[in-house]
Amino acid sequence: MITETAYMTIRVGHEAEFEAALIRARTLVEQTPGCLGLTVQRGVERPSVYLVTIGWESLDDHLVGFRESDRFGQWRALLGPTFAEPPSVEHWGPVEFPA
Amino acid sequence: MITETAYMTIRVGHEAEFEAALIRARTLVEQTPGCLGLTVQRGVERPSVYLVTIGWESLDDHLVGFRESDRFGQWRALLGPTFAEPPSVEHWGPVEFPA
Repeated sequence: MITETAYMTIRVGHEAEFEAALIRARTLVEQTPGCLGLTVQRGVERPSVYLVTIGWESLDDHLVGFRESDRFGQWRALLGPTFAEPPSVEHWGPVEFPA
Repeated sequence: MITETAYMTIRVGHEAEFEAALIRARTLVEQTPGCLGLTVQRGVERPSVYLVTIGWESLDDHLVGFRESDRFGQWRALLGPTFAEPPSVEHWGPVEFPA
């Protein structure tokens, strides 16, 4: 289980356009094998920034299964016009605590 | 519902100490009224960084209910010695999509 965090900074005044595009774009991610779900939140301190969090069964499900698919091009075509800068993307793995 | 993201960069070699302290420290957060849960993940690209995500019923549950309580001092006393730099904390609110 890997979590992808993607910080998307949107051009001022294009927030509604971004949210509308995301309704269509999120299906492209959610249909990808290994995708465990996608959530979207908006910054309290930075309202022009959205935090998109995506669960993946493995890193390759994102980096190969999604990024190297046609769906990634469609995703960027839908969302890219609203971006003020390239998204900042990282991955996070579980921390196992003793029971 | 508000999500707090806290990025904690740990001094190299002190990761196990941080994780052990977190087992005790997390209870301080989880016992705070309005806390909806806490998750901890570790960076794939930046293994010295942990992402602590905490759900709160409201912003004040974090900023007043936790930060102004004695529990916050205990939390920082447990975790602070392992920090390489001050944590980076932000808050995120829900985005409502039409059904």
